[in-house]
Amino acid sequence: MTQTLVAYNIGNYLLDCLYDYGVKHIFGIPGDYILQFDKLIEQHKIKYINATSENSAGNMADAYGRLRGLGVVCITYGVGINISNALAQAYAESSPLVVISGAPNLSEYDKGQKLHHLLNKNSILHQMDTTQLEIFSHFTIDQAILTSAEEAKTQIDRVLWSCQKHKKPVYIEIPRGMALATLPQIVHEQETSQNLASFQSTPTSRAIALHPILEQIKHLLQKSEKPVIWAGHEILRYHLSSALIAFAAQNQIPIASTLLGKTVINEDHPLSLGVYQGKMSRSEVRDTVEKGDCLLMLGGILSDVDTGIYTTELNHQHKIFATAAEIVIDGQSYFGLDFADFIQALAETAQLAAPERRTIGIVGDGAFQMTATELSTAARYKLDPIMIVLNNQGYGTERPLLEGEYNDIHNWNYSFLPKLLNCGVGIKVSTEDAFDTAFKAALTQRGQFHLIEVELDKTDFSPALNRFLSFVNGTKTNDRTAEMVMPNN
Amino acid sequence: MTQTLVAYNIGNYLLDCLYDYGVKHIFGIPGDYILQFDKLIEQHKIKYINATSENSAGNMADAYGRLRGLGVVCITYGVGINISNALAQAYAESSPLVVISGAPNLSEYDKGQKLHHLLNKNSILHQMDTTQLEIFSHFTIDQAILTSAEEAKTQIDRVLWSCQKHKKPVYIEIPRGMALATLPQIVHEQETSQNLASFQSTPTSRAIALHPILEQIKHLLQKSEKPVIWAGHEILRYHLSSALIAFAAQNQIPIASTLLGKTVINEDHPLSLGVYQGKMSRSEVRDTVEKGDCLLMLGGILSDVDTGIYTTELNHQHKIFATAAEIVIDGQSYFGLDFADFIQALAETAQLAAPERRTIGIVGDGAFQMTATELSTAARYKLDPIMIVLNNQGYGTERPLLEGEYNDIHNWNYSFLPKLLNCGVGIKVSTEDAFDTAFKAALTQRGQFHLIEVELDKTDFSPALNRFLSFVNGTKTNDRTAEMVMPNN
Repeated sequence: MTQTLVAYNIGNYLLDCLYDYGVKHIFGIPGDYILQFDKLIEQHKIKYINATSENSAGNMADAYGRLRGLGVVCITYGVGINISNALAQAYAESSPLVVISGAPNLSEYDKGQKLHHLLNKNSILHQMDTTQLEIFSHFTIDQAILTSAEEAKTQIDRVLWSCQKHKKPVYIEIPRGMALATLPQIVHEQETSQNLASFQSTPTSRAIALHPILEQIKHLLQKSEKPVIWAGHEILRYHLSSALIAFAAQNQIPIASTLLGKTVINEDHPLSLGVYQGKMSRSEVRDTVEKGDCLLMLGGILSDVDTGIYTTELNHQHKIFATAAEIVIDGQSYFGLDFADFIQALAETAQLAAPERRTIGIVGDGAFQMTATELSTAARYKLDPIMIVLNNQGYGTERPLLEGEYNDIHNWNYSFLPKLLNCGVGIKVSTEDAFDTAFKAALTQRGQFHLIEVELDKTDFSPALNRFLSFVNGTKTNDRTAEMVMPNN
Repeated sequence: MTQTLVAYNIGNYLLDCLYDYGVKHIFGIPGDYILQFDKLIEQHKIKYINATSENSAGNMADAYGRLRGLGVVCITYGVGINISNALAQAYAESSPLVVISGAPNLSEYDKGQKLHHLLNKNSILHQMDTTQLEIFSHFTIDQAILTSAEEAKTQIDRVLWSCQKHKKPVYIEIPRGMALATLPQIVHEQETSQNLASFQSTPTSRAIALHPILEQIKHLLQKSEKPVIWAGHEILRYHLSSALIAFAAQNQIPIASTLLGKTVINEDHPLSLGVYQGKMSRSEVRDTVEKGDCLLMLGGILSDVDTGIYTTELNHQHKIFATAAEIVIDGQSYFGLDFADFIQALAETAQLAAPERRTIGIVGDGAFQMTATELSTAARYKLDPIMIVLNNQGYGTERPLLEGEYNDIHNWNYSFLPKLLNCGVGIKVSTEDAFDTAFKAALTQRGQFHLIEVELDKTDFSPALNRFLSFVNGTKTNDRTAEMVMPNN
């Protein structure tokens, strides 16, 4: 290993590590506790992207992490707690999100005074505030507060490794001044990414560990006549769609997805079945999934939503469940195996790099009002997503649960948003033909965002919502489970 | 006490209690775990106000509570964590905010399955999720989960009392189904508000407790030649401005305020000095406050911001500090006294009810982009605030701390917002005369919101920010405290 002598400060070391992990953009809102680090980003080859609020910055970094392997959001102390929802979502849906926050320096507490952006509870003086750490601990699997230049390198290495390994958020807090503190050792520039390997077992040892499991699965598949795959969102997080599809194609196994895993396979693919969600599914999807004789449930969490309010019927002769946490074959659990290795081994193929894709967002009017201002960020950075706003005048998925005025929202002229934001193209359509024309036009015109408002009736529910309604009406009388879940597709 | 027989369910009992506390509006975002309670609100004389996001609903309820004595926000489980920032602010600035959240019912956990809107960590099955309770405990002084109809009444009574007593947020979680559960006892309709009195000591006992303190203060004031009041935000939260001003007028004591307490006295009042914030203050304010011989610091928290980065010089011969937590006279502490009683006793006067006031918001462009969509709520409910957007093209207060691109934001045509929202009047002004004209027009035109965008130069800093800059430039070399605080006035 060749050595390059580099005098590193903590901030630049962290940025270089992130860059090695493929991070080219960091999202954030500036604030005085984090400004020193923001300045380091500005001077780094990583680009800083402003959002209009911390939570939006978190959502952006979450999406970036899902696509690129690691997303980073940078916030200041206290008000940074505004990121909680984005962080909770990243945790629940297994997205590799790194939260970096500024904080007061230990010496600031020494003044024994109340500091801005803190809760200022009565407490023992000179004591560091840990509110943000405690709250974020609910939503992260690893955390570090960089109070010591001696320990910072180890902390950063460990926390970033945890993030990419487990596809869950992590938290790094940089007390003021520490971003510029010099690391005690001279560090080799490429050491970080090479060091990562030492945390992991060798490819050979991993293949040996997987061998008996793969043999068992091979045996089960050879016996099966109608195997079926039900694939979840972890396939997406670990970037295993191509591997999964290759495996399915080799063995001609149809693929259904969970709701969260909806995009594991293109809906046009001959092996694609659609979303399976128990009795909420289309009948042909139910038939194929439930009448199979060997179920491969790969990378999904079986929540109330994913199971169609516990209406799945999975009485297959053989069942293979595999997630990042464990692999279970016909009731026998195996722990400590690498999920990505497992799926890759199933496929014995190599993935292609994803081509540059254009972002197409489909969103209801209620959800859109929560984040509409982020098209400002798209405008600033000259991005050109196509946003399709399905305007059904309120919280449509909640109307069948319990209708009331609280499900209505104030109607906007969504197509005026470009005027407000000095950028973009807005159009309102009310027929399928008009939508087709607008959508095709948007696809051909690059360089600025397009917003297509689709006028819908208040009660124009999706087929899935109608299936849910039938289910509710059939079981209503004394059963409160009917109110329990709203389908989202 | 006359008895009226009423069969109460928990939800209606809670609503009646809130109504007794003066709550006429509840702010919120609906969601399936809270829909039952939302429906009860719809049927109640309290009105439900939709916001565009949970955090905005929290901010609205916070403001409502400051003005009306109690603010209430209603959210669903999990995504309700989005309210964290509003809640943290309400805690830090002592605002009486009640957070009501829906939650899964205990029986839903019995299914041993993963539920939507939860983090779905691996844990012992059949166990209630307490994430939201744990997070909100950081920002609230009292909490209750209404799992039992037997205990619900006592819990509600206690938690609401804590809120109005301490002017801090509280948290009430209603598991699904419990809003409709019947209270075991028949409750008298007016009992709640009368019961509250029993938690408090009697007026006579309180007067006796305060007597020696008031005598001591009287004695100190008689000896003083230049007493001065420095008043903080607790004066506002306990609605004591009139009492304070009456006391000041009787004794001809000038009043300076903290930054958070800025509105305790009208700036035109002959006794008003302006904001005192150490060396960040105007020199005439500093002179009067610091050269007084008896300081009455009433209802303030001495944070880094409020002390102008610890540059206050408070070497008065006598000092009286009084907050909701304690009263300290020349170093002698007294606990357990009622802050409102104390200030009222100082004044021996009675407050006037506040006349109906029109809301005038002054906001920077950066902050406005975070919450602009809430003018949608003003439009829906036919409110007519005047919003003055000071557009200095970015995070102006942060530029003098450490300038960089991260302090820039994408510019909007703010005056187009009414077009987007189907309501309101928007205008952009760039001279003082044009502002005067627009502002006067807005004052005379009621019925819809007015937005005045004031075009400012990027570096058009306020006098306070300029004083801060001088301070930074004077002390920069080896002192990092210069980066520590950004003034906000």
